[in-house]
Amino acid sequence: MLQHGTQLGGKRLRPALLLLSGIAVGSLGPDHIVLGSVVEMVHTATLIHDDVLDEAETRRHVATINARWNEHTSILVGDYLFAQSFRLAATLSSTEACRMVGEAARLVCEGELRQVLARDVLNISEEDYFAMIRGKTAELCRVACELGAKYSGGTEATVEAMGCYGDSLGVAFQIADDFLDLWGDDSTVGKTLGTDIGQGKMTLPLIRLRETVPAPQWNEICKILTGPVDDRLAGAMPFLQKSDARLYTQRVAESFKERAIRSLDCLPESEAKRSLVKLAQFSVDRRF
Amino acid sequence: MLQHGTQLGGKRLRPALLLLSGIAVGSLGPDHIVLGSVVEMVHTATLIHDDVLDEAETRRHVATINARWNEHTSILVGDYLFAQSFRLAATLSSTEACRMVGEAARLVCEGELRQVLARDVLNISEEDYFAMIRGKTAELCRVACELGAKYSGGTEATVEAMGCYGDSLGVAFQIADDFLDLWGDDSTVGKTLGTDIGQGKMTLPLIRLRETVPAPQWNEICKILTGPVDDRLAGAMPFLQKSDARLYTQRVAESFKERAIRSLDCLPESEAKRSLVKLAQFSVDRRF
Repeated sequence: MLQHGTQLGGKRLRPALLLLSGIAVGSLGPDHIVLGSVVEMVHTATLIHDDVLDEAETRRHVATINARWNEHTSILVGDYLFAQSFRLAATLSSTEACRMVGEAARLVCEGELRQVLARDVLNISEEDYFAMIRGKTAELCRVACELGAKYSGGTEATVEAMGCYGDSLGVAFQIADDFLDLWGDDSTVGKTLGTDIGQGKMTLPLIRLRETVPAPQWNEICKILTGPVDDRLAGAMPFLQKSDARLYTQRVAESFKERAIRSLDCLPESEAKRSLVKLAQFSVDRRF
Repeated sequence: MLQHGTQLGGKRLRPALLLLSGIAVGSLGPDHIVLGSVVEMVHTATLIHDDVLDEAETRRHVATINARWNEHTSILVGDYLFAQSFRLAATLSSTEACRMVGEAARLVCEGELRQVLARDVLNISEEDYFAMIRGKTAELCRVACELGAKYSGGTEATVEAMGCYGDSLGVAFQIADDFLDLWGDDSTVGKTLGTDIGQGKMTLPLIRLRETVPAPQWNEICKILTGPVDDRLAGAMPFLQKSDARLYTQRVAESFKERAIRSLDCLPESEAKRSLVKLAQFSVDRRF
């Protein structure tokens, strides 16, 4: 089951961030390898539980654990991975990594809880939206970069700058995810489009739409967003296309990408730094 | 939600074991209080996820989180508690408690996974049964007693003896739980009887029944155990009553209770030691 679970993750973004941050700041040691595994395990645990929440059948063209086995198994395999990741973090010499990973995992759950409780709440603010995605996506990217820098002997200022890079990249990455759910190509994205809108999740394009259309038109859109699940994407799309929601979402994602790249100013030039810049660009420009 | 979650736990057995073990071996410090909270939080997290697995509506006469909110919320609140418990364990000065709690949590999940995969498998051995209940119930009791003793400065031999006490008490406790699911009084047990048999879980009384009835009769019982869920308890009960399953189960639980009490022989007489003896007796003699 765990072997199957490892196929569900795709990009290995978080360990890549951790290792590249470590190389960009100093040099890698065995602790970086352990911590890269720890953050990916925490992430995989949350993906497995997400697939239960979303009743997803496939992820990245592979059957989810709930589809291949059942929900019970998914919940327990996710719990197993959580426990194992903490046990692994505790093999390092100090409690610092345990504290940082534990706190990040707690904030990921908090972000996801906020999102579940905000389902079908169409009037959530942009601020609420950012609080949710900071927790559910950016937090683990932030802590990956911080750990990478810290375990390479980075100064407090450098660790903080790398944390800011990870946070901004994570936010940009999630906005791009929300963008792809509406305007992606389902054969390259690897999951069904319109999932967010079907689940009553208000993402940035919809919030922008709400903020820019006249009230009577928004009432009409609300009926679509709370109507039959399968009609929502097609129903809302003409309104989205007429608005500036697509352009606005891209612009906001770009601004977080720029912020991420600026956070790297404190680092000397290196191949690792250039890779981090490319990762920030990829987080926004990707098609999957 | 977390406040509601704290009402679902009942006996606070694990923190009681941790604190009493600490007092019986030496004296309590602030770390014991932290660790008592940690083990109870891990336990509560597993209860919340169990209630999702069992689709339980109430626990100890209180609405479960999945009944009061929904499954999604339950999964995330459980995850939140897991993460928070590890973060709390990491506030202590060394990684030892993180390692022990992480490993115990991993074994709890492994025990539960074994049980889920053994559903409707009517030929599991007594050995498999003990492996499952050691993981899902005894492990966290064992680690609670070990932590209590260790943080009171107990020698390696004392810590091991206390671990053996916790393990034996946990096994006895779970056998009593399985016993009560068949022969308890549902108004005092606080949950519906026959849940195990309804979920296709082979517990010790059923394993004993299988080992002692002639093959043709067992075939008849198999039809009942795989038949309509609501008819299983009433259908199997006459066979159980005619066999020695009830007496055998009580005898095995008693033997683990005795083993737990014998493990305490290395401790000097004290009020805490007497309480630990009483807890071992209670784990078997209880009606709830």
